[in-house]
Amino acid sequence: MDIKEQLKEAFEALQNKRALIHHITNYVTVNDCANVVLAIGASPIMADEMSEVEEMVGICDALVLNIGTANERTIASMLKAGKAANAKGIPVVLDPVGVGATSFRHQSVAKLMEAISFSVIRGNMAEIKTIAGLEAKSAGVDSLDQESDGGKIALRLAQKLGCVIAITGKTDIVTDGKVCYALDNGNVALTKVTGTGCMNTSLIGSFLGASRNALGSAIAGILTMAIAGEIADKSKGMGTFHTSLIDAISQMDAKTIVDKCNISLIK
Amino acid sequence: MDIKEQLKEAFEALQNKRALIHHITNYVTVNDCANVVLAIGASPIMADEMSEVEEMVGICDALVLNIGTANERTIASMLKAGKAANAKGIPVVLDPVGVGATSFRHQSVAKLMEAISFSVIRGNMAEIKTIAGLEAKSAGVDSLDQESDGGKIALRLAQKLGCVIAITGKTDIVTDGKVCYALDNGNVALTKVTGTGCMNTSLIGSFLGASRNALGSAIAGILTMAIAGEIADKSKGMGTFHTSLIDAISQMDAKTIVDKCNISLIK
Amino acid sequence: MDIKEQLKEAFEALQNKRALIHHITNYVTVNDCANVVLAIGASPIMADEMSEVEEMVGICDALVLNIGTANERTIASMLKAGKAANAKGIPVVLDPVGVGATSFRHQSVAKLMEAISFSVIRGNMAEIKTIAGLEAKSAGVDSLDQESDGGKIALRLAQKLGCVIAITGKTDIVTDGKVCYALDNGNVALTKVTGTGCMNTSLIGSFLGASRNALGSAIAGILTMAIAGEIADKSKGMGTFHTSLIDAISQMDAKTIVDKCNISLIK
Repeated sequence: MDIKEQLKEAFEALQNKRALIHHITNYVTVNDCANVVLAIGASPIMADEMSEVEEMVGICDALVLNIGTANERTIASMLKAGKAANAKGIPVVLDPVGVGATSFRHQSVAKLMEAISFSVIRGNMAEIKTIAGLEAKSAGVDSLDQESDGGKIALRLAQKLGCVIAITGKTDIVTDGKVCYALDNGNVALTKVTGTGCMNTSLIGSFLGASRNALGSAIAGILTMAIAGEIADKSKGMGTFHTSLIDAISQMDAKTIVDKCNISLIK
Repeated sequence: MDIKEQLKEAFEALQNKRALIHHITNYVTVNDCANVVLAIGASPIMADEMSEVEEMVGICDALVLNIGTANERTIASMLKAGKAANAKGIPVVLDPVGVGATSFRHQSVAKLMEAISFSVIRGNMAEIKTIAGLEAKSAGVDSLDQESDGGKIALRLAQKLGCVIAITGKTDIVTDGKVCYALDNGNVALTKVTGTGCMNTSLIGSFLGASRNALGSAIAGILTMAIAGEIADKSKGMGTFHTSLIDAISQMDAKTIVDKCNISLIK
Repeated sequence: MDIKEQLKEAFEALQNKRALIHHITNYVTVNDCANVVLAIGASPIMADEMSEVEEMVGICDALVLNIGTANERTIASMLKAGKAANAKGIPVVLDPVGVGATSFRHQSVAKLMEAISFSVIRGNMAEIKTIAGLEAKSAGVDSLDQESDGGKIALRLAQKLGCVIAITGKTDIVTDGKVCYALDNGNVALTKVTGTGCMNTSLIGSFLGASRNALGSAIAGILTMAIAGEIADKSKGMGTFHTSLIDAISQMDAKTIVDKCNISLIK
């Protein structure tokens, strides 16, 4: 199916179904994540108590795991929630925030990847490269650390993990291991507000909860954030830009996305 | 006393006393809750460490318990804080967020209700019905699950618990078990920003900390949120609406509330 | 060096180095703290898991510890992070939020002060007086509780601890134990938005991460917040003021600070 058709379907799916998106996420950007989920037309639930996450995920349409401020307790809850989601066929999205920064993050993400099948993993180039390295290491193969081509890293990782890999940055790369797209939307101001990456992941989770199309949801989520960043008011400073981003997301529709998207098939 | 007189008194009480409102609340909406408490003229304190909550509640004028992202540790802190508040005559408000969603939430709210006398419980219809069911169950009587009339459920629950019950929704219902009011203010945009329910509860706590009038505080808090939702700018999207809501709360006064409120005595 | 020269250097340092600022901070205001760090030109990292804070602090340029919603677990992480920062020569800033309110906070701050050498401690008058009392007590000397002159308290404490003490309020006082400045900028609206104190501390941490000049960073951080408070739009209410504050911080520069600052050497 044509990618623009998939984008239209992604927005239609959200209109047809009030998707519930369970998050176990960081406390820095959680309010913005909840608000973008509402803005795009889904419903957020944030809950991290180990003894309730299985039940919670069971009433939801997608699960978003974000390790931004994770600790031992919440990683254990993520493992439990992720396994329950897999068992019930509920798609899971991973945001491996800062995975390269500490051993705790390496090990936590390695555990999550071993226990859970993800539908989409979204990170920046450094994060996805770290994950590719973890995967290579656990598979006993040579490290991919020397690889500098994002498209190749993403493709190989997507094939190995059987999931969609999304690398966001100046140019975004999204692949399901078969096809690979480059997205050239966005604005540098998005790097001056905390949590635009987290919000991006929550938007992907929202589309995914409604449609179950992992590739289309990843592209729709990333384009929503990027094009909102283009539209939002940058004239007054980063407070107004932040507010205006949420405005733009709450008014985003398939037509705007399809008209403004700058997307190319690179494989 | 006439309800409009009570509303005027609620605002006067906040002007006469800088009420300190202790919260044990969720990390999704906590910043907005603190800001609406400040906006209405009280002062927020958020603290959940078990070993300090008794002391903290002792210097405060009201306690707000919100289970939105509660875990075993924070529920234990809520129990300790609530009992201390009861012992010292400090009013306690409960927001049973999503109580129907999981066993952990059922059990936690059941424990809180058994251990603590609340002045006000505010939730949506589903949450208050769940609480009515828990109460009925613990009392060994028939379930109220079949009851669909919000006013009757609220009245009966208020009588059983000896507290004010507030159900917020399209029409809000507030009762102390003797009289019951229906409030018809608000705007649907309030459902598109996360935490408007939590903020509502924090506003009730703020009025209650200053006046100790549970019925008047519940109505004043709900009307403040609802009328702010009517006033706030909805033309640009949900980011601006969110900001504009806080603007409207920070400029709310008794005259605006009394002029705009659409309130009727239904019992 | 002239204080205005130091202010210019503080801004230049941030332009020359993308400083990473590790925070272990409260969940009420953490989003605003991250956003002001970005707005002024540094990068925030928030992480509180005990097993990763040593590594995290090792890749950062400054550490900010804020006890606003601390618990036993996060105080332990603060101790570990602070000691690691000291060992590596990374400057540490303390915000002793509400230290006077509970025994847990007294004891936690006493532990932090015993284990960690701080570069800057910023609090309001009540907080700094409490710290002065704790220090006096631990040193076996008479309490300073009776002292009402902020400048004298700050000077004595700065000398004892060998760090910069900043008292923020209507007039701010900043001293390194040798010289002492009074700063008369700001606006009362800053007290109507939660977290302006926390943001202030995060701004100090940002300047300090780039320049390592503790006195200059404390003054630059406080003036940035205070002058942003003067510039920000107060006409619509506290929501817009909050947004406009971040706008003003993101557009702050040395020239604006130097032109608008109202600073006097009081010792």
